[in-house]
Amino acid sequence: MKGSVMSLSMYQASAPVFMTMLNNLSAILEKAEAHAKERNIDECVLLNWRFAPDMFPLTRQVQIAADFAKGTTARLAGVEVPKYADDETSFAGLMQRIAKTLTFVESFRPTDIDGSEDRDITLTAGSRELQFKGQPYLLNFALPNFYFHVTTAYDLLRACGVGIGKMDYIGAV
Amino acid sequence: MKGSVMSLSMYQASAPVFMTMLNNLSAILEKAEAHAKERNIDECVLLNWRFAPDMFPLTRQVQIAADFAKGTTARLAGVEVPKYADDETSFAGLMQRIAKTLTFVESFRPTDIDGSEDRDITLTAGSRELQFKGQPYLLNFALPNFYFHVTTAYDLLRACGVGIGKMDYIGAV
Repeated sequence: MKGSVMSLSMYQASAPVFMTMLNNLSAILEKAEAHAKERNIDECVLLNWRFAPDMFPLTRQVQIAADFAKGTTARLAGVEVPKYADDETSFAGLMQRIAKTLTFVESFRPTDIDGSEDRDITLTAGSRELQFKGQPYLLNFALPNFYFHVTTAYDLLRACGVGIGKMDYIGAV
Repeated sequence: MKGSVMSLSMYQASAPVFMTMLNNLSAILEKAEAHAKERNIDECVLLNWRFAPDMFPLTRQVQIAADFAKGTTARLAGVEVPKYADDETSFAGLMQRIAKTLTFVESFRPTDIDGSEDRDITLTAGSRELQFKGQPYLLNFALPNFYFHVTTAYDLLRACGVGIGKMDYIGAV
């Protein structure tokens, strides 16, 4: 199959993208954990870092990123979105949350998600009920939100001096 | 065509996504410009804000976001990437840069970009030459980079106290 790429599909544009970025995010968190340990920084300092008093701290950014991966693949496949408790208090806990999310995302086959362009998606965001078709849900809501939280987690750790660079975010290319 | 969504395609996953997010980014910059004016803050303070000494400041984040939109659509369509000077020194200048980029991105028709999954893409990043097929280039390089720079621009302005929220980033849904 060398050199061959299949047509873009709803599966290709979602599950493998989430897998790659969640693996990258987990590796970034591992570097942050080592950074805190080396410098005797209480992990809580980094985990609660935020850019503004009314923005979410690092822990919540990671939880939401993982939840967009879980919720998007589940909704596109038309299965119930599993609920995970938001109770992580360490980098190890966040990495476990990502690992659990990866196992869920990896459980989908292309045929579970392909053809979901026109699927009706309903979700609640705060007090609002949002209705989408599958394709605009993925392209204009799920992916920009997912990337928002992964990037903000990266930026928070970068601002805290953790030795990470753009290639940690993008991964091997 | 009410309720109908076409199959996901390379065009749908690129140009309209860039257009939406660049329009959102421009509106965010307009709010930042007004914020600076109201509080008598020299625009340069915001334009040069950065999260770490070795990260790019706001101006460069916006330029790079715009360049990913321009470069990605051009490369997927197989046309030369136009070069724009990186000489903006004001929010108005950055909004013009985005407007010029939008005109370029809007010039592509779906047929210019659709079917580019397997197209060979070569580009240089720093001193490295990167080679991709069109689909992984879009999904694993261009989009994560584009969202990285849009989000970082948003986060920088949010950290500076500009009155923006997540809906400014996502836009009307």
